[in-house]
Parts: sequence; C-alpha cells; structure tokens
Amino acid sequence: MNFLIIGGDAAGMSAASRAKRNAPDMNVTVLEKSMDVSYSACGMPFNIADPGREIEDLVVRRAEVFRKKQGIDLLTGHCADTIDTAARLVKGITRDSKPFAFSYDKLLIATGASPIMPNIEGNDLPGVMALKFLDDGRRLKNYLASREVKEVVILGMGYIALEMCEALRARRIEVSMVKPRPGFLPWMDEKLSAVIRQTLEKNGIRMYSGRAVERIRQAGSRLSVCCPDLILEADLVLVSIGVRPNSELAADAGIALGVKKAIRVDRGMRTSDPHVYAAGDCADSFHAVTGEKVWIPLALRANRGGWAVADNVCGKPVELEGIVGTAVFKVFDLQVARTGLTVAEAGQAGFSPAEVIIQARSRAHAHPGSSDIWVHMVGDKKTGKLLGVQMVGQEGVAHRINAAAVALHQKMTVDRFAQTDLAYSPPFSPVWDPMLTAANQLLKNL
Amino acid sequence: MNFLIIGGDAAGMSAASRAKRNAPDMNVTVLEKSMDVSYSACGMPFNIADPGREIEDLVVRRAEVFRKKQGIDLLTGHCADTIDTAARLVKGITRDSKPFAFSYDKLLIATGASPIMPNIEGNDLPGVMALKFLDDGRRLKNYLASREVKEVVILGMGYIALEMCEALRARRIEVSMVKPRPGFLPWMDEKLSAVIRQTLEKNGIRMYSGRAVERIRQAGSRLSVCCPDLILEADLVLVSIGVRPNSELAADAGIALGVKKAIRVDRGMRTSDPHVYAAGDCADSFHAVTGEKVWIPLALRANRGGWAVADNVCGKPVELEGIVGTAVFKVFDLQVARTGLTVAEAGQAGFSPAEVIIQARSRAHAHPGSSDIWVHMVGDKKTGKLLGVQMVGQEGVAHRINAAAVALHQKMTVDRFAQTDLAYSPPFSPVWDPMLTAANQLLKNL
Repeated sequence: MNFLIIGGDAAGMSAASRAKRNAPDMNVTVLEKSMDVSYSACGMPFNIADPGREIEDLVVRRAEVFRKKQGIDLLTGHCADTIDTAARLVKGITRDSKPFAFSYDKLLIATGASPIMPNIEGNDLPGVMALKFLDDGRRLKNYLASREVKEVVILGMGYIALEMCEALRARRIEVSMVKPRPGFLPWMDEKLSAVIRQTLEKNGIRMYSGRAVERIRQAGSRLSVCCPDLILEADLVLVSIGVRPNSELAADAGIALGVKKAIRVDRGMRTSDPHVYAAGDCADSFHAVTGEKVWIPLALRANRGGWAVADNVCGKPVELEGIVGTAVFKVFDLQVARTGLTVAEAGQAGFSPAEVIIQARSRAHAHPGSSDIWVHMVGDKKTGKLLGVQMVGQEGVAHRINAAAVALHQKMTVDRFAQTDLAYSPPFSPVWDPMLTAANQLLKNL
Repeated sequence: MNFLIIGGDAAGMSAASRAKRNAPDMNVTVLEKSMDVSYSACGMPFNIADPGREIEDLVVRRAEVFRKKQGIDLLTGHCADTIDTAARLVKGITRDSKPFAFSYDKLLIATGASPIMPNIEGNDLPGVMALKFLDDGRRLKNYLASREVKEVVILGMGYIALEMCEALRARRIEVSMVKPRPGFLPWMDEKLSAVIRQTLEKNGIRMYSGRAVERIRQAGSRLSVCCPDLILEADLVLVSIGVRPNSELAADAGIALGVKKAIRVDRGMRTSDPHVYAAGDCADSFHAVTGEKVWIPLALRANRGGWAVADNVCGKPVELEGIVGTAVFKVFDLQVARTGLTVAEAGQAGFSPAEVIIQARSRAHAHPGSSDIWVHMVGDKKTGKLLGVQMVGQEGVAHRINAAAVALHQKMTVDRFAQTDLAYSPPFSPVWDPMLTAANQLLKNL
C-alpha cells in the first residue's frame, strides 16, 4: 500500500505518523514544498516577541526524526503540481528543478492555507510580508534583526494582527493597524470589543478602521501605506487580512470544492474522489451547532483530521464529529475566546437568537487579584438551546470557554447548562461561575 | 404566605432573596443563630493569610441590606430548637435567652454543616479550634493577632487543611499536619498526590500520616498534640477532619435523613414532610453519574438549592439536576481539581472502571512559562462513558475541569469527549489539550 501525502505540517505529519503506527509496513511518503515540517505556526508571534529565541524552536519534530525513527519517506523541497486521479499519480518539481512523480493507492491532500495578499501596488516590496509559514517567521525575524525597525503598519485586525501587536510592542516597535471596513472586531459585540480596543490603545497601538489601503510605496528604507486622506509611514508592513485554502491543486484534478473554496470532505475526510482524502486548513468541516458545512481552519482540527485519514486509510473506520469553532487568543493582558455562533451567525443559520452580555468577576467576592470578565451568550428562543459564547477578561477565559464548547457539542439547552456543577474556589471563580451567571440571565430572555 | 427559613448563609439567604424577588408580598423570615449572614466561608483561609484584611470583608451582603432593601425579616441570634410539623411551628431561643415561636406555611431547613471535633481529651482547650463559621475565622484571626503564634498543628489533611497550610506559611508560621490513617489524599492516585506532597514539603509543611491523636495537653500558652511515639508542640491546634450535616433538628421533628445523616430531599428539595424543604450543606443530592444519593456539601449547590426552594415555594416548579462533585482548591502554587468518580468510587457504583494518568504541559510546545499538568481520567469499560477526572498543575487546572464536568452531566462517552473542539492557543494549551490527550489515551484502555 502506497499512502502519499501532499503537505508536511499538522494534518500531513499527523496522518503520516499515525499511519506508520497503525501499519508499520505501509509505504508512507510526504511531499512538502518548503524545507520545514511539523512546526507551530500559531507560536510565531510569541517567538517573534523575543529576539533571543530561534524561530527553529517552533519545530515540534525534526524531519530527521520522521525519516529515521518513524520510517516516513519525508521529501522536503518537493512541490506537487498535478494530481492525475485516473492514473493515481502525483507529479511535481523539486527545489532544484528536478521533476518527480509518485503513484498512490491512497492520497491525502494537506496543502493548508495561504495568506491573502491585497491586490495593490507595492504588495511585493521587500518590506511587505505576511506571517503564515515558518519561512515567513524566519524572514520577518531576520528583517527585524538586520535593520532598525521602529514602526510597523499591520494591514488587518484579526487574531494574528492582534497577537503581533503585542509581539512588536515587546520589541519597542510602534504599531498601527489599518483595515478597510468600519468597526473593529465585526464578530464581537461592541461591549466586549471595546475592552480589547482600550487595551490596545493603552499599549500605544493606533487603529485606523474604514481606511482602504490603495498602495504601498517605498522611499529608501521606508514604506508609505497610502489610504485616502491618510499616509502611514513604516519600516515594515505586515499583511494579516486573512487566509484562503490551498485548494487549486485539488480543483485542477477535478476534486470538488465546497464552502469558501475549501476542499469538500465528508465526516471520514473523503473528497469526491474515492482514493483521495483532504485534511487540515485546505478542507472544510461540519459545524456541530448548525449541521452546515463551514471552513474554520484551526490547528486542533488539522491534527485530528490527519489522524482520522490515517485510520481510514488503514482500515480502521473513523467518522469525525463536527466542530464548534472554539478559538482563543491573547492580546496583551487580555484573553479573548469564542465558541459556537454569534448572534448574526445564529440568525443566518435559521435560529431565533436571544442574547445576554454580563460583566462578572474572575474570582470570588473579596478575593484579592480579581478582575473583570465579560460573557456574551447566545441561545435559541425556539428550542432553548445554547448556540454560542464569547468572552473577554484578564484571567480564566481561555479554559472557561471549553465548558460551553462541550455543551455545544451536546446540543444542551441553556437551562441544563445553567444547572451544571462547575468548579468553585475563591482564587479561581465566584460561587456562580461567570458562565453560569450568563446562562441564568440568558434564560430570562429565551 | 409565611415562608420561614432556618439558617442565614448560602442556601437560606439565596432562598430568602429569590422568594422576595419572585413574590414581593410574601412574608419571608430567616432565623440565624449566629450574628453573621451571607458570608464566604470558603474565603476564610485566604483572608486569614493576610493580617491586614478584616474578616468582615468576607460578608457578601450585610444583614441591613437584606432587611431594609429586600424586605426580609432577618433575625440573627435566633437559635431554632424544635420544629412541630403538625402545628407548623418553629420554636427556639434568642441569644439573650428570650423564647420565640414562628408559624409557617412553608419551611426551609438550611442549617448547614458543622466541623467534626475529635472525641479526645483537650478538644475544648482555648487554643484548639475549627474553621467553619465566620465566627471561627474571627476567633482564629484574633488569636493570631493577640499573641505570638509560631507553630500550628493541623489535625486532618483535607481541602481546608491544605488551604490553611498556605495561609499560615504566608504569616511565617510553622505548620505540621497529622492524621490517623496512612497515606495522604486517599481519593487521589499516588502519582498526583505526590506532586502535592512535594509542594507541601518544599514549603516546609511537616506531614504525619498514620498517627492517631490521643490527647491535646496545655502547658502555659503551649499545646502538645500527643500521638503514640510522637508529640507535636504548638501554639494553636486547628481541627480540620471533616464536617457533618446539621440534621438533628430535622431528625427530631421526624423528618427523614438519608446518606451520611444528611436530610433526604427529592429533586425539588422537598423533605419527607410536604411543607418542609431542605437545602445547602444539611441536605443530600443525586449524583448525576451514579444516579445514587450522595452528600457532597459545596457552596454552588447550596446557592442553587436555595433558589430552587424559593421557586417551588412560589409556585414555579423546579427540579434540580444532579451534581457531579466538581471541586477545586489551591495549595501554594498548585491547582487541584476533581469531578465525577474516582476509580474506587466507580467500582463501588457498579461500573467497570478503566483509567489513565498522563503528564502533559500547560502551554504549547516551546511556549515560555509552561508547566507540568497531570490528568487522571476514569471511564467505564462496559459503556465507554466518562466517569471522572482529577487534575493537578500550576496553571490551567481550575477551569479546565469544567469541560469534563459538563461531559459528565451529559453522560458522554470518552470517545465523543475526545472529539470535542477545545480552545487552543500557545499561551494557554498544547494543540491537544491535556484533557483530550488523556481521553485519547484512555480510549486504548476501554
């Protein structure tokens, strides 16, 4: 059995490792176009914050370990460019321009996602860069090390942009963020997003919403980010306006795409071709709350998808549950988390959303060190079910969200969730955990 | 309608407040034998740690607020001593020895629990005290303030004992703990309890297990805690060997007791008498995992039980879900949490327990500040269901346990729990959250 994998990051290497554990005699080949495999892309902002750390620290397992200890035929610098599904053959070219071709019995496409670059003049200037692949992090870190960077302009205000604000401020770099649409975090209620905005302002981040960037110009070592009525000067421009699935290779082979042009997969990660699987940021998934297909690229799903593919390839049938879109990020001293649907998403999915926003404390009455915690909870008036939660606070947000995530997987009603027996001790929570207080309040609106 | 409540702490005052919100015209009378109402008993160790804080800081709502703003007839210093269920009459005596009698339409018994005192010589010496009621905290704090206390011996090694270790060390007091049975935390696996033991030892706590205390003797201002072959000297002896439900008043009135002599209640908090409810630490509850009656006195349940009684009394029928026994406590820099059943409890309840213990990290690969986290997870071989989780670690334990608590309420299988979409970001978790890693490993043993 030849199990061929295109892409050597989370999904690809998880699948390769598990396939070799399941079936040590299987031929497992991985084609990775870059020279990096199995690294923590999510860790890059935190690594960049510290000039004393090597970007290579983010490599979870070195290529040599996969090759020698695990017996995986891992080929870096191998860029696949066509899949012939009839002949079950993948062709491509290596970094040193040598053509290659590999046949397969089963194929996994794990090509990930790529940053979206704005289609404007100057998007290819040397000081304009995105942050997705380890090589991006390497390039950015080298750039910061090799010259004096005093000012950075970030295009976009998503997770990565916000994490990079903290990283760059840690290096005493001035940061401005600019985005074309008005508002700040469109998926978050103003009451919660205002808390994040205040923290950003307190840390000296300048924010320009509703400003379309028309071009980026270079003058000597400086860059100018040009919007109507606004020019932002910078030594470096970081593009962080989103990602798109790397699905062209699959599409060109006639494999069906789904939501947002991600590769369409079933619960067993099978594509429209019976011998081809897809997993990771290039594939779509089911949302456990709506039952609909979504494209929410996240690392845990990539790892889990890789495992599921390996099990299915090895004859151990696995169907994955849907996702609930749980995510958390850190912005300076704040933790921001979400799971499930926003009010707008709930309405679009056909629910009758009711909502509540509460402000509570992270610790018990009179316990020192307590801080504010905001919970935005959404339920369905028709069924009474919990639909989603968003939270902001200085402590206790990142893991608190998981209780709601489990409740969403189980399609719990708000009423039943409000009755759950959550942990209480004064240093960690009020008697009524903020999640329970939110649920109790939401019940009144359902 | 006369709604009479015996006991003015969590369950009693929650019921009183909610009844007045539900039905502002109802006569709500609370009889509290002490002079303190509505305080955070769980906060006492943390308050005692700091000589600069008043014990009164722990009062959540002052008696005057209940009386004047909420219209509750709150009578402190009123000790109820008989319930006549036929006449629906409660009699008792005030602090200044005046007899009183109140009739009721509905009665709530919320008499709480009391510390168990060892039946040994010297248990009534002035320097021998327990820590349950606010007045205990006041007495202990005054004792520490009024003389030089250099050494404390704690009888028992439960939650309160461990929290008091930290509080007393913060005041530079030497601490020894002694208990009659061998071992340390009997409900916890040695791999996890050893972590706690090491932390206690590192902080200079001396532990003596398997030592029965035979007597406590006084010589001047010093106390001697006498065990066979061991005498521990102390300036103060703290008794922390457990609590028992205050159910004598109910039992004397012919009301049925249940598990561990707690007052037996149904899911609506009704006792065996149709006009009498019980809630809080004096009442039993259903365990959602076993379906059996248990007595696990915890603050959240007391508050929730009080609300449920108020709603039922006011004609808004409420049935409470069972509990899963979620608890967390802090021991120096460690967080210790549990939910559901231990292996032993699972076996006793008729399950076929399988277990796994994993050691993981609190943050992502290569993220600075990461620490160890231990998870002990128990499942049922027959049904594949999750039965319980115990955790120890320096961070991320207190709220992580809640995901498992929700799963237990929902009777989830380990397999489904292993597929939940938990939050990941490098500062807060590995890609595979320790809970998921434990579930994945446990699956192999089921």
